[in-house]
Amino acid sequence: MPVYKAPVNDTLFVLNDVLGLERYNNLPGYADATPDMIEAIVGEAAKLSEEVLFPLNYSGDQEGCVRHDDGTVSTPKGFKAAYDAYRQGGWLGLAVPEEFGGQGLPYVLHCAVGEYTSAANMSLMMYPGLTQGAIAAILVHGSDEQKQTYLPKMVEGSWSGTMNLTEPHCGTDLGLLRTKAVPQADGSYKISGQKIFISAGEHDMTDNIIHLVLARIEGAPEGTKGISLFIVPKFMVKEDGSLGARNPVSCGAIEHKMGIHGNATCVMNYDEATGFLIGAENKGLNAMFVMMNEARLGVGLQGLSIAEIAYQNAANYARERIQGRSLSGPKAPDKKADPIIVHPDIRRSLMTIRAFNEAGRAFLLWTALKSDIAHRSPDDKDRQAADDILGLATPILKGVMTDKGFEHTVMAQQVFGGHGYIEEHGMSQYVRDARIAMIYEGANGIQALDLVGRKLALNGGRAVMALFKEIGDFCEENRNDEQMAFYTKQLKKGLNDVQAATMWFMQNAMAKPDNAGAGSTDYMHLFGLVVLGYMWAKMAKAAQTGLAGGDSAREDYLKNKLVTARFYMERIMPETALRKARIETGADTMMELAAEAF
Amino acid sequence: MPVYKAPVNDTLFVLNDVLGLERYNNLPGYADATPDMIEAIVGEAAKLSEEVLFPLNYSGDQEGCVRHDDGTVSTPKGFKAAYDAYRQGGWLGLAVPEEFGGQGLPYVLHCAVGEYTSAANMSLMMYPGLTQGAIAAILVHGSDEQKQTYLPKMVEGSWSGTMNLTEPHCGTDLGLLRTKAVPQADGSYKISGQKIFISAGEHDMTDNIIHLVLARIEGAPEGTKGISLFIVPKFMVKEDGSLGARNPVSCGAIEHKMGIHGNATCVMNYDEATGFLIGAENKGLNAMFVMMNEARLGVGLQGLSIAEIAYQNAANYARERIQGRSLSGPKAPDKKADPIIVHPDIRRSLMTIRAFNEAGRAFLLWTALKSDIAHRSPDDKDRQAADDILGLATPILKGVMTDKGFEHTVMAQQVFGGHGYIEEHGMSQYVRDARIAMIYEGANGIQALDLVGRKLALNGGRAVMALFKEIGDFCEENRNDEQMAFYTKQLKKGLNDVQAATMWFMQNAMAKPDNAGAGSTDYMHLFGLVVLGYMWAKMAKAAQTGLAGGDSAREDYLKNKLVTARFYMERIMPETALRKARIETGADTMMELAAEAF
Repeated sequence: MPVYKAPVNDTLFVLNDVLGLERYNNLPGYADATPDMIEAIVGEAAKLSEEVLFPLNYSGDQEGCVRHDDGTVSTPKGFKAAYDAYRQGGWLGLAVPEEFGGQGLPYVLHCAVGEYTSAANMSLMMYPGLTQGAIAAILVHGSDEQKQTYLPKMVEGSWSGTMNLTEPHCGTDLGLLRTKAVPQADGSYKISGQKIFISAGEHDMTDNIIHLVLARIEGAPEGTKGISLFIVPKFMVKEDGSLGARNPVSCGAIEHKMGIHGNATCVMNYDEATGFLIGAENKGLNAMFVMMNEARLGVGLQGLSIAEIAYQNAANYARERIQGRSLSGPKAPDKKADPIIVHPDIRRSLMTIRAFNEAGRAFLLWTALKSDIAHRSPDDKDRQAADDILGLATPILKGVMTDKGFEHTVMAQQVFGGHGYIEEHGMSQYVRDARIAMIYEGANGIQALDLVGRKLALNGGRAVMALFKEIGDFCEENRNDEQMAFYTKQLKKGLNDVQAATMWFMQNAMAKPDNAGAGSTDYMHLFGLVVLGYMWAKMAKAAQTGLAGGDSAREDYLKNKLVTARFYMERIMPETALRKARIETGADTMMELAAEAF
Repeated sequence: MPVYKAPVNDTLFVLNDVLGLERYNNLPGYADATPDMIEAIVGEAAKLSEEVLFPLNYSGDQEGCVRHDDGTVSTPKGFKAAYDAYRQGGWLGLAVPEEFGGQGLPYVLHCAVGEYTSAANMSLMMYPGLTQGAIAAILVHGSDEQKQTYLPKMVEGSWSGTMNLTEPHCGTDLGLLRTKAVPQADGSYKISGQKIFISAGEHDMTDNIIHLVLARIEGAPEGTKGISLFIVPKFMVKEDGSLGARNPVSCGAIEHKMGIHGNATCVMNYDEATGFLIGAENKGLNAMFVMMNEARLGVGLQGLSIAEIAYQNAANYARERIQGRSLSGPKAPDKKADPIIVHPDIRRSLMTIRAFNEAGRAFLLWTALKSDIAHRSPDDKDRQAADDILGLATPILKGVMTDKGFEHTVMAQQVFGGHGYIEEHGMSQYVRDARIAMIYEGANGIQALDLVGRKLALNGGRAVMALFKEIGDFCEENRNDEQMAFYTKQLKKGLNDVQAATMWFMQNAMAKPDNAGAGSTDYMHLFGLVVLGYMWAKMAKAAQTGLAGGDSAREDYLKNKLVTARFYMERIMPETALRKARIETGADTMMELAAEAF
């Protein structure tokens, strides 16, 4: 049966040694986040994940959700109790301002914890995950009344939230959406239409569900300029905060999906349901993007989470399964065969996954720290600089970590041979679950276009130039550090490739935008390789600092860090040249065939 | 709902224009295979696949197989009737010698047909697929009596066959197997033990099932040198050929798997079941490898099949789904959005899959032709040369086409966005089905080791040198052909990389075998890239010849061939440099961590 152990030491290494979190104690919430406090929180989250959430992961997949004839939906056995443990622990509001019932701690801690909980039970964690996106949107765009009405209950988790964007004929292109909103005399709206693929759209875990719904106000302009965002509660909320009438919004069906069976993916029907405008009329996309950006980080995190649990199980299996002999002579001569971890090809897989996971964890937390700075710093310049990087990093985190997360989960499954293909060991579930992360909250092709088509050029390329400079400066600063030479040399090569590719777009994609589209996915991965390489260089530096300081308790850990850093630089980093070469071939060949020739 | 159309024109192009099948009419069975005959056979197979097999693919996945309390197994509704249509059409024996009821036609035709039938219904086609492997083993290693007793019924498909290798504690390392065979006075054996992952181990489609079972004769040496192969019929066969007593071999359970739900994957229990030795005592692995090599080609073929049906559905969806506008201005101004096939990133996916599928088809049929020459040529030297290439090509075909087949099926699923993740469109099934092909008949890591550790060095590297020469000669012969210059230049680069990597192994892996293991998977893919590139160069040549000859009926088809060839050479071929670079980093870093550090 599957196992999971939260990688607490690695998280603490990133937070303390690599990011140096204590340097940020001028940010609100950070003063409380002392190293001891961080260790305690992360340790508690590990315990919850391992002992409460994880034991329901496999059974939740096998059982799935059930929609009953009356439109109610049952979640798998044990889910409600586990969810209650999660919400009663105050985890939902970890980083939410205290005035709405949260703890106001750093968002970076929320992400550190989120890795564990999603690894332990991705389907279950999607319920509060969607709530968090909705909380973010209401926090930023809601009126004071809306905040008071909805946030405290959502933060304590007794109500949940959803995002209602997709319709049968429109997903990526929200300008096509048809759900309509008719203004009422009392200032509310009647919402009618159908939404599909609504995660956690209906379930039995909370007293109320707060749907955030994109719709078009009658008479609004066509396209994306006529879209507004509405709060549509499942049960109306009375003035005293108690629940009133059932709103006519219902789950028409739940989807039969490849994975995340423990989460109810619903078709939601709105039949003149009462909704309340959130934010400005026809500015729904802005409000939606607050949810979306938060959700994209959360999905990138899922890519890491599943790749991590898959890695752990593959490593365990590779240590235990005996089969064949080492190419360099028996390693377990007392046994009939060696454990398969002696085989280089098995190690190639494990090292590859490990190299991405450890760098991915650093990248996630580094990005989350930027988010904290962007939202909490008292310094305008710092806020802007951090926000620039956050905007750039978000599509990379989402796209690269879910593409690679899936690829590596498949790689981990492969370590099991035939035993990975049967459901019993849980590897099939991880693959089926990880697959969705490449798709939802903007398919990865859209992330790549967001990066190349929007984020690169924003403010005259300010963000990308700042990041290139930061990485270049790191290489420069360590120029005379012999121990760092190998890492910075490889990083510099990667940096040169992504800079050259960026230049190529500037020269070739302005006049011919198809050249940007043709190279977008390769560019996203090229950028990802370099950013993850940067994380590895930073981690190598921190490991060397630790070793030089005589950190004997972590000596093995820190040395292994350096080995994995070397593996990344040797085996993974050279891919930047291939990605760059592909980008530079442009769009001509791929655009040449007639549509009907495919 | 999913669609499938057998790519008949492309098959005929490969058989006629690229391979020039009519040049081989000196081989037994080839004289009958005139272009008209080939077209008729391929056309019939297309019809059977599209109209009989394919309509049961989705329902078969949804319904799955059921084991009843008495140990019998029901296959999904309609499977038996479709199987009967297949076997009554004589498809099972297409390439089997006429004396055993087959048609004696080229094996290359069998593979051409096999692509369609497996694309249309992989799970269903595994039943006769396993029979074919068993037929091959009996043909080569069976006694005359065994051939007469079993082959005619198996060739007509009224009996099926299985391969029983894996046990719970041993898969790859067959030397560990425990199933035992006790000699009886009458020359038969009593077989006892448990086998797992037995595809088509029990079902309701045939009158009898002929299990080929690896077991250890009492007192035989340990390890692989003590393994023998046995025929264990489900029902004993009387002297007159009629069925007798039920042999004590039974299905104890069927596995709950990620995919191929329509095929019964069985735990088989042998309780002193009567078995008959096939081939020599303790030489079971030799006999098994006859089945295995045939099966590996068949699995490589499955990789192509599923990637092809996934591609077709993705292309259709991309033409029909309207969402967003082309980066270069509206292409369907009368509609609210453009079909997504206008987006470069969608085309990147479709072109990538297409480039592999078309080359993969050529590679499959080219390899099958080598198999025909190896088995049928009257010329010793030709036989040996073809057998050399066949041995080299088999692990590449299996490993590369199933790795890429899966990757590209996932890529095709991605084109559907969220609609690819729900079961309804069939894309999830293709992904789940394609996944097994990377695992069974030797996981792909084993294919890579077979290539690097065994096939490369065989007979002093005779095979690999011959193939390098063939590809080099092709480039040389076309040196002055301007139209071919781009293709041969790129091919030559790839050839240089695979030659350099081969040299690196010679210099670095003899003394340190871990260096071979560490680079094996990259080498397999590197070699695959070059062989597929060679296929593209040959196809480009054939297309140019067709165009120069004024083949106006196929003008668009042939021009599109050249565009796809260019895409492969521009975007895919440069990967050889990365693969080579990885190989040359060797094993040191990946072998450094202690097992418990993972």
